[in-house]
Amino acid sequence: MLPTPKKYFLTAASAEGRSRLTAFDNALLNARIGNLNLIRVSSILPPAAELDNDLVIPPGSLVPTAYGFIVSDVPGELISAAVAVGISEESFGVIMEFSGKCSKAEAEETVAAMVREGFETRRKPLKEIKVAAVEHRVEKIGCCLAAIPLWY
Amino acid sequence: MLPTPKKYFLTAASAEGRSRLTAFDNALLNARIGNLNLIRVSSILPPAAELDNDLVIPPGSLVPTAYGFIVSDVPGELISAAVAVGISEESFGVIMEFSGKCSKAEAEETVAAMVREGFETRRKPLKEIKVAAVEHRVEKIGCCLAAIPLWY
Amino acid sequence: MLPTPKKYFLTAASAEGRSRLTAFDNALLNARIGNLNLIRVSSILPPAAELDNDLVIPPGSLVPTAYGFIVSDVPGELISAAVAVGISEESFGVIMEFSGKCSKAEAEETVAAMVREGFETRRKPLKEIKVAAVEHRVEKIGCCLAAIPLWY
Repeated sequence: MLPTPKKYFLTAASAEGRSRLTAFDNALLNARIGNLNLIRVSSILPPAAELDNDLVIPPGSLVPTAYGFIVSDVPGELISAAVAVGISEESFGVIMEFSGKCSKAEAEETVAAMVREGFETRRKPLKEIKVAAVEHRVEKIGCCLAAIPLWY
Repeated sequence: MLPTPKKYFLTAASAEGRSRLTAFDNALLNARIGNLNLIRVSSILPPAAELDNDLVIPPGSLVPTAYGFIVSDVPGELISAAVAVGISEESFGVIMEFSGKCSKAEAEETVAAMVREGFETRRKPLKEIKVAAVEHRVEKIGCCLAAIPLWY
Repeated sequence: MLPTPKKYFLTAASAEGRSRLTAFDNALLNARIGNLNLIRVSSILPPAAELDNDLVIPPGSLVPTAYGFIVSDVPGELISAAVAVGISEESFGVIMEFSGKCSKAEAEETVAAMVREGFETRRKPLKEIKVAAVEHRVEKIGCCLAAIPLWY
């Protein structure tokens, strides 16, 4: 089997780029995860995974990551991305991502509500929610990205 | 290299949610794969992989999974998702996913035709097709999901 | 952790299919990667990864792959997909993907410009760009795909 991740951190950043993909790439770089091979996952924090804000992951590594992003080429538009993880007392956690044409505060509220719904559905007690979010006013082509990389 | 999966099962389920992502999350839970980290793959059943309907996969595991889904926020709309795997006599199989605004029966027919096309193109004899499908009449925000998780 | 890939190659191909997904499947087959379980990654060439055009990967393998594709069901439409990797002198490389309703030449230019932007942003010297691209005039349902599979 593939090894289950043991560590994680939250990150969010925005950027402009000359194209949609390079705006995304630049946002990844600003979020400190631009030199990795992100593998998108849907989106559970493994049991006993520990927050580690000082993780250094070698370039090119395959990194399971829950993320949301939005790219816009409408100058002046306000865009946001947020990610949240709900921590349970003694079991796995639930990760939610959100992005949209809204403020950072709205994205934070939305993603936190999604985590609460995820815990309600699972009938698990929710101990704590951690959120990372970012907003960006588009100049030419802008991207907001929020991510929870999972690592070892 | 990443280890090649050896087991699989088919699953399909639907759900409502307060948001598009939590509808998806709830459908995953109903399909018994909501507490996993699904990694989406395109979509071959490895040679000698065995059907195991009793697989228990630990929460948070990284699970290569072929899946299709549809989310709708149009009350009254009928949505469906289907997944199918074509089994060959002595080699790998071919997995296809389909989702759309149609009935379960239509989704099943469509996805089975896709598997037959996949075998014709590969000039391989098709021994059997297994299908899992689900339909759902949207109340507020609904999701149909069909998946083939691959495991070890 | 997941093992970091050590080899790669570039490939691009097009195909028609009876449905959108089987057009994609047929393009994968024409690109010699149709019998694999592609895991999409965002998109760094690991340090010291070597080009190997003769890689033979067993069917059903989980293969981290950077790819771009486009499917069209508009008869007569010209579609293209391109992938490029920028090689650095002594470190990791940067992979970009592009697809659109344009010629192969335009796709090649666009994706190469994206790689140059990726190197500028990282302030790294760019040694060489390798590109694979394909164009296709849609008959009924057509797909163009360009990919860089990463392997071991």
